Amino acid sequence: MLKYQEIAHELEKYIEDHKLQQGDKLPVLESLMAQFNVSKSTITKALDLLERKGVVFQVRGSGIFVRRHKRKGYISLLSNQGFQKEIEGFNLTSKVIELDVRKPTQEVAENLNIGPDADIYYVKRVRYIHGQALAFEESFYNKSIVTYLNKEIVSESIFNYISEGLGLKVGFSDMYLHVDKLNEEEAEYLGLKKGDPKLYLESVYHLTNGQPFDFSKLTYNYEQSQFFFQSNSHFF
Amino acid sequence: MLKYQEIAHELEKYIEDHKLQQGDKLPVLESLMAQFNVSKSTITKALDLLERKGVVFQVRGSGIFVRRHKRKGYISLLSNQGFQKEIEGFNLTSKVIELDVRKPTQEVAENLNIGPDADIYYVKRVRYIHGQALAFEESFYNKSIVTYLNKEIVSESIFNYISEGLGLKVGFSDMYLHVDKLNEEEAEYLGLKKGDPKLYLESVYHLTNGQPFDFSKLTYNYEQSQFFFQSNSHFF
Repeated sequence: MLKYQEIAHELEKYIEDHKLQQGDKLPVLESLMAQFNVSKSTITKALDLLERKGVVFQVRGSGIFVRRHKRKGYISLLSNQGFQKEIEGFNLTSKVIELDVRKPTQEVAENLNIGPDADIYYVKRVRYIHGQALAFEESFYNKSIVTYLNKEIVSESIFNYISEGLGLKVGFSDMYLHVDKLNEEEAEYLGLKKGDPKLYLESVYHLTNGQPFDFSKLTYNYEQSQFFFQSNSHFF
Repeated sequence: MLKYQEIAHELEKYIEDHKLQQGDKLPVLESLMAQFNVSKSTITKALDLLERKGVVFQVRGSGIFVRRHKRKGYISLLSNQGFQKEIEGFNLTSKVIELDVRKPTQEVAENLNIGPDADIYYVKRVRYIHGQALAFEESFYNKSIVTYLNKEIVSESIFNYISEGLGLKVGFSDMYLHVDKLNEEEAEYLGLKKGDPKLYLESVYHLTNGQPFDFSKLTYNYEQSQFFFQSNSHFF
């Protein structure tokens, strides 16, 4: 972790520990520099990171303020750490239904940017939150990047394993979302009825070098899932 | 528009005009500096902005690459310009059902951070895309910020009016999303059946100074709407 990331981490902890609320003002730059004993540019980078994360907002000429929403029980859609991290603080378990090595369909090959003869790991799981079926998942990993998976690994957080076990650097992701009705298989896994609503999310996860390594399809139980996300004002 | 925002705009146009694809490499910093005749720090700020917008990704020691998804017909969830901008390139119209000034419910007052005696504008509309009902909308504007609305204004883009007509600076937003079944009123407005799936999105839009000015509730037609969003790798 780089210095400015550490500082950002500590600042975030400070905000939580002091139970600061939306709109509360942080100390001025000079105080933060003194408090953490770092340069102005390190503090600035830390604050920029926190702004992008939606933890603070900066008002030109006025200061840095805490950004904090009040609603509980929402899953963040945008913390780009795979599924596990998104629901930190929730009690999450998995049941592995299938795990094998296979050739990609055309759809999977296009999303992973690989040829039809490449090998992929196919993972089919049901994810549970507090013991309730939260989502039905099918994931496709480019085996030339994610070189090894087994049943024990995929019954826990695959993303933890990918970054810590395999040492890969997870970068950006593209996500596609729509709402539809559950088919029979999905309904059965989620304990719902065919035709009930579903939130369907396709994601393509890339390494920091831009290579897609994971294409995943998640079908969420509408009774168990509500999502939260934030937008910044950095766009023109 | 600041210089680096202009450059970012031109770079984005360059990528579009040259039909660059995901993974295509941009010229090195020095070439971009020469091409746009600006300093290194301006180019760097422009590229950072484009990275946050999901237009490029930077690989340390390797260069700047184009980020571009291939799917058409998806509405971006995160361009923070209100509804109109999100579906740029789509043919969007509105039918205004109600517009009045009233007192907020407790829910609205909490989300707009105002007292029970403050005045709000209440707007109820159906939004159409290519003539099909896309969403049923209820919006609540803090009247002390959005001081004037009329039927003509709310039949077009309220956000355009807010930023250009009233000169307000739209900042960040918090969004809450879940999936549920349509009730009778929603189904009627959307031309669907009671019990059909809906994507339900609540948003709180803030000015750049952190004041919430708009609390909106959108119920999307699941047959007409699919969403796209991107995540960056800036989080720890």
